[in-house]
Amino acid sequence: MRLGIMTGGGDCPGLNAVIRAAVARTLRTYEGHMLGFENGWLGLINNRVRDLDLNAISGILPRGGTMLGTSRTDPLREGGLDAIKEGFEFHRLDGLLVCGGDGTLSAAAQLAEQGLPIVGIPKTIDNDVRGTDYSFGFDTALSTVVRAVDALHSTAESHDRVIVVEVMGRHCGWLAICAGLAGGADVVVAPEQPTTIDDVCELIQRRLARGRDFSIVVVAEGARFKPDASGRTPPIPRRLDHKGRVRYGGVGEVVAVEIEQRLGIETRTVTLGYIQRGGTPTAFDRMLGSRMGIAAVDLAAVQQFGRMVSLQGSTIHSVELSAVRGGPRPVNPELYEAARVFFG
Amino acid sequence: MRLGIMTGGGDCPGLNAVIRAAVARTLRTYEGHMLGFENGWLGLINNRVRDLDLNAISGILPRGGTMLGTSRTDPLREGGLDAIKEGFEFHRLDGLLVCGGDGTLSAAAQLAEQGLPIVGIPKTIDNDVRGTDYSFGFDTALSTVVRAVDALHSTAESHDRVIVVEVMGRHCGWLAICAGLAGGADVVVAPEQPTTIDDVCELIQRRLARGRDFSIVVVAEGARFKPDASGRTPPIPRRLDHKGRVRYGGVGEVVAVEIEQRLGIETRTVTLGYIQRGGTPTAFDRMLGSRMGIAAVDLAAVQQFGRMVSLQGSTIHSVELSAVRGGPRPVNPELYEAARVFFG
Amino acid sequence: MRLGIMTGGGDCPGLNAVIRAAVARTLRTYEGHMLGFENGWLGLINNRVRDLDLNAISGILPRGGTMLGTSRTDPLREGGLDAIKEGFEFHRLDGLLVCGGDGTLSAAAQLAEQGLPIVGIPKTIDNDVRGTDYSFGFDTALSTVVRAVDALHSTAESHDRVIVVEVMGRHCGWLAICAGLAGGADVVVAPEQPTTIDDVCELIQRRLARGRDFSIVVVAEGARFKPDASGRTPPIPRRLDHKGRVRYGGVGEVVAVEIEQRLGIETRTVTLGYIQRGGTPTAFDRMLGSRMGIAAVDLAAVQQFGRMVSLQGSTIHSVELSAVRGGPRPVNPELYEAARVFFG
Amino acid sequence: MRLGIMTGGGDCPGLNAVIRAAVARTLRTYEGHMLGFENGWLGLINNRVRDLDLNAISGILPRGGTMLGTSRTDPLREGGLDAIKEGFEFHRLDGLLVCGGDGTLSAAAQLAEQGLPIVGIPKTIDNDVRGTDYSFGFDTALSTVVRAVDALHSTAESHDRVIVVEVMGRHCGWLAICAGLAGGADVVVAPEQPTTIDDVCELIQRRLARGRDFSIVVVAEGARFKPDASGRTPPIPRRLDHKGRVRYGGVGEVVAVEIEQRLGIETRTVTLGYIQRGGTPTAFDRMLGSRMGIAAVDLAAVQQFGRMVSLQGSTIHSVELSAVRGGPRPVNPELYEAARVFFG
Repeated sequence: MRLGIMTGGGDCPGLNAVIRAAVARTLRTYEGHMLGFENGWLGLINNRVRDLDLNAISGILPRGGTMLGTSRTDPLREGGLDAIKEGFEFHRLDGLLVCGGDGTLSAAAQLAEQGLPIVGIPKTIDNDVRGTDYSFGFDTALSTVVRAVDALHSTAESHDRVIVVEVMGRHCGWLAICAGLAGGADVVVAPEQPTTIDDVCELIQRRLARGRDFSIVVVAEGARFKPDASGRTPPIPRRLDHKGRVRYGGVGEVVAVEIEQRLGIETRTVTLGYIQRGGTPTAFDRMLGSRMGIAAVDLAAVQQFGRMVSLQGSTIHSVELSAVRGGPRPVNPELYEAARVFFG
Repeated sequence: MRLGIMTGGGDCPGLNAVIRAAVARTLRTYEGHMLGFENGWLGLINNRVRDLDLNAISGILPRGGTMLGTSRTDPLREGGLDAIKEGFEFHRLDGLLVCGGDGTLSAAAQLAEQGLPIVGIPKTIDNDVRGTDYSFGFDTALSTVVRAVDALHSTAESHDRVIVVEVMGRHCGWLAICAGLAGGADVVVAPEQPTTIDDVCELIQRRLARGRDFSIVVVAEGARFKPDASGRTPPIPRRLDHKGRVRYGGVGEVVAVEIEQRLGIETRTVTLGYIQRGGTPTAFDRMLGSRMGIAAVDLAAVQQFGRMVSLQGSTIHSVELSAVRGGPRPVNPELYEAARVFFG
Repeated sequence: MRLGIMTGGGDCPGLNAVIRAAVARTLRTYEGHMLGFENGWLGLINNRVRDLDLNAISGILPRGGTMLGTSRTDPLREGGLDAIKEGFEFHRLDGLLVCGGDGTLSAAAQLAEQGLPIVGIPKTIDNDVRGTDYSFGFDTALSTVVRAVDALHSTAESHDRVIVVEVMGRHCGWLAICAGLAGGADVVVAPEQPTTIDDVCELIQRRLARGRDFSIVVVAEGARFKPDASGRTPPIPRRLDHKGRVRYGGVGEVVAVEIEQRLGIETRTVTLGYIQRGGTPTAFDRMLGSRMGIAAVDLAAVQQFGRMVSLQGSTIHSVELSAVRGGPRPVNPELYEAARVFFG
Repeated sequence: MRLGIMTGGGDCPGLNAVIRAAVARTLRTYEGHMLGFENGWLGLINNRVRDLDLNAISGILPRGGTMLGTSRTDPLREGGLDAIKEGFEFHRLDGLLVCGGDGTLSAAAQLAEQGLPIVGIPKTIDNDVRGTDYSFGFDTALSTVVRAVDALHSTAESHDRVIVVEVMGRHCGWLAICAGLAGGADVVVAPEQPTTIDDVCELIQRRLARGRDFSIVVVAEGARFKPDASGRTPPIPRRLDHKGRVRYGGVGEVVAVEIEQRLGIETRTVTLGYIQRGGTPTAFDRMLGSRMGIAAVDLAAVQQFGRMVSLQGSTIHSVELSAVRGGPRPVNPELYEAARVFFG
């Protein structure tokens, strides 16, 4: 058996665990070969590849990032379909394991529909890929956010301040809501539950009335607001970058300014940004990544292509690769309800 | 609604998250009262109790341990049944939330069968309580072990040594196997998979043959060994303490001595002990504890007594309290198979 | 002996260690009393005070923030001198321990010159208070930054990106330079060593030429730039807040835009902000805080007022409180030279 | 300039920072060459060596252990002097940087007296090497111990227990005393301050009398006891290993048994062992290691051989290599006095 593996899309803790597990499973259990393609689809298109043996994966388990590099190259838009087919033939691949998020896996689904032997492995720190209960990377990102919220608590309390923490999550509030629940936030604003600035301020005021002179507000970068009593929505910046894509970020600062103006309480913003994508993966993510890497090789070994490994409850199953379609997966409402118990 | 809450058995990160959530849910959602009984069943028997309001739970979410204290008092053996019934009446309890492991919950099941309005919340760093997929505390303990294994890796490699890490797990290998998988152990010995010292040594030798001059061996304190080719089993110490109970611990040292003697490679032992029970809970455990605390109150509110909250897949359900019976819950074999991919 | 203690200025890990040590020393060694004034000078002016006994300080050592709260109230500007003198008399204080940074200690020096029995304890995460080699809080902040830089490294490397990390340090580069050295930054820009964007870009290019397609640039919030070859300096934002004070922050984003424009390499910014002020103090800071708290009480006991405790080398001494004057203490040039060895 | 570098003795966080800094300084500042000898003196004797260029040191800064491996080989006892001289000639070394503790540096001093161009770099997690105020590795080990003590606190408090923590330190109490001070221990027993079990128990009882039903006792592995009132000293085990060397460890368990027997309070032991030697180095240790690596190369560049780099206060100086002689460096008494303020 001769397999390839690649990692695409944004950085995500646990990718090295996947690669390590896939290599070990292929070489040890199936006595096969594994090729590592570099920088996402680019490696397959440009033939940047290396042989992955047991030495290659030594020591990578605790490391963030991906030893193969990544990119956001779209294999279809770049006219790459032919190049990719050639890559499969040139390297005599019996199968390709594709680790990626929404975008990478949607492309993979299309390639699989063209007959290419592909197995998908879902990856996202946002936890919003459809078809799996959890993706590796999310638990590590969540831990990073919660550690930050813990640190901010003491400062907020010492200074009698409101601190607004902006976390990742363009379309879904998994990180915001779970970090709110695990970090003890007093308000959470997520894309799935649009709110008003009035409501946010009221929750903070309820705390002031109880003698709690500080508050922690967690806001997803993709948080959405409804008009408040005065018909006004906060002016969320939605800049475009030089490629015309929406650049997120900035909503935290906007919310902080609104709170400070309305309540007259000193309010600060912290935008966690890329530190949420890095760091040594948690035990949970290393286990999930390892199990998914093993399961993906097992699927390839029985030629179950066009499928994606998936965590369902506490076991690893597989689903059609096309299951990733349908847009981001919203947060489980029970979690939001749980976080809301502690609001205000 | 007038509820009580207590924590029994060994210390476990996440107990404060449960208490906090139960108090917030009771006071905020149901406008009820919550009494905290101190030191397990003792508090109910001896009437050591305090009123838990929102101020009482401020700041406890990130802390290990339990603000209520704990004990291993058996409510039945101490002739406490009458005292406990009196406690229920005296405090006019509409329900009691009992957080505990195997032992505490078995007693709770018996009390519930006597008609006492009890809801159980499973708690164990060993993850071996029946009736739930995961218990809070386990993820934190696992993280502590994995951090230690990470630290030991560099020392083992720098010195060309074998390091044997003894972790908790008297009856089940959840911690050992998951830490082996997440920490990259080269051998794991767990109670569910008895092995021989020969097999352990062979795995280490296989690594030596590949030029890997160091190995990490993770051993559960309750690890069991079969006789090897020479008919010999390692002399595992099973001391009794002054109350006649089996004292675990020491198996790691025995395994290390055997390895050193047979292979002539310098071998060291690290016994992690009680640091596995402490520390700030992980985000996962804080969320799980919070969700279980909320769900337990919700059960009490609809008078679903004699039940225990339970994580099934990624949602919170409930099961009969008697579901905890039947002895410790063995580790999911898929996890052992996954860990085994990396052995040797 | 009847002492008071207060904490002023920005939040700083280790303040609770100081308070705990001062209380223990006063009560146990001298059998005296300790009063805790809340929210900086405000507590003394407004008579917000509590008795600090051994129970009050139980469990506070590992916590960030300050159990007494803090504020930036200026005791002199608020016409508070008389109020403060009254406070000393009303509470029959034999001495007051003042923990603070530059601003708080300068005020303390003036009060001491008016005859008030004050001992100063230097505190700053920026490490730029004069009169001491190190202040507690700095090591914790540095550790937070270095952990973030570690996490960003793997992302930068996986994506072939430049990441600009903006850290605290308005006037001095202690955090930036030390984090650069300890985190392995490829460029550091600090207030003490003005540079040009040309120079920054050249260092990144030197790495590209060596096949290192990623770089980490650490920039102090108060970084200053000289005009480059084209006579241009980057447009550093220096906003004023509603009280007319300079608001720092934003230089990282400016530098990132410049790098991206000139080199065409994808560049991202991370602004660490307030997480640098929080978190559980490191062992180093707990020790330094504890030793300073003890030494401050010892000074008060022998009526050495108008002085400030000070770490000189590895021992605790004291200096005149007026030693804090003279503006922020620039970073030791040897440290910058050490960090520079790894640039480019 | 053609230099070599080696690391000898026990594992110690920060060694990779030293190697990285020495390589960068040699190649970048002096345009020289650096050879890395593997496994301590063995590499020089057996000619196991590799060329260290800038790629070789990429990514090693945050890693524990030493990329060169280490051993406890004695260069003199093994008749290695001639082999070592040959190694110097064969590799045309202008100088050799030797990172090691007491033993390695004493040997280095002897070799230097024979005319070999050697520069020493002190390394010990115990902080007991003479000639420097601090060695890298100590701060990381201390942080590991303090994190463990923090975790144990919540368990001790929840269970009303005494927990005895045995830490490294055969001859000196640096780790025990500093961890006691930074971790908030209630008793510390160190080699420099022999005590009696009576005194230990009295401190615990004093706490019981104050209603503090738990205590943390930190004991150095080399702790010494005086006879108590009954003329009895606790039976500290001093086993010999198969090479006839004293094996430390076990004193914690002995102390715990004594406390439990005398006071009747449940007492547990935790022996931290090798996790104290591993893990990613703290910012402090990375800085100190980097600065020492740079300074050692600078000494070699001006042919100041037979010297050792040294931290004095907050600056790097150098001392005669023979300064390491005279036995382990006892802990600064001020630190013990500071820790003692919190006893009982």
